[in-house]
Amino acid sequence: MSEHEKIDYVEFPAKDLEVAKSFFSSVFGWTFEDYGPDYAAFSNEGVDGGFYKSDLTASTANGGALIIFYS
Amino acid sequence: MSEHEKIDYVEFPAKDLEVAKSFFSSVFGWTFEDYGPDYAAFSNEGVDGGFYKSDLTASTANGGALIIFYS
Repeated sequence: MSEHEKIDYVEFPAKDLEVAKSFFSSVFGWTFEDYGPDYAAFSNEGVDGGFYKSDLTASTANGGALIIFYS
Repeated sequence: MSEHEKIDYVEFPAKDLEVAKSFFSSVFGWTFEDYGPDYAAFSNEGVDGGFYKSDLTASTANGGALIIFYS
């Protein structure tokens, strides 16, 4: 449920979507909904979001936001 | 309130904390709690998080996570 004036969604780059999904499924218990071969969405895991296939890597060394997962 | 296995917190770099706070206060109505001159935290704005003073800039061109704000 989107709320006005809040952070609503986070997208992460992933070099290999299957590896990313496998990691977050096994470690965090997340489930994913695929949108074709290049996108996998998750819902209600703190925020909604998704992984998109990309050769880029999220890194705070490049100024990327630091995302903290609670386990 | 932290929940297990969820995204819990997001940290953004900000070149000028006062400018960042002013923008998110006026546009999104957020409030901040300062932790000294180099950190400003926010709570419950979709997720908890904060801005830290840095010359870096969050950019998806560098692989940074794309954070979507709902307004």
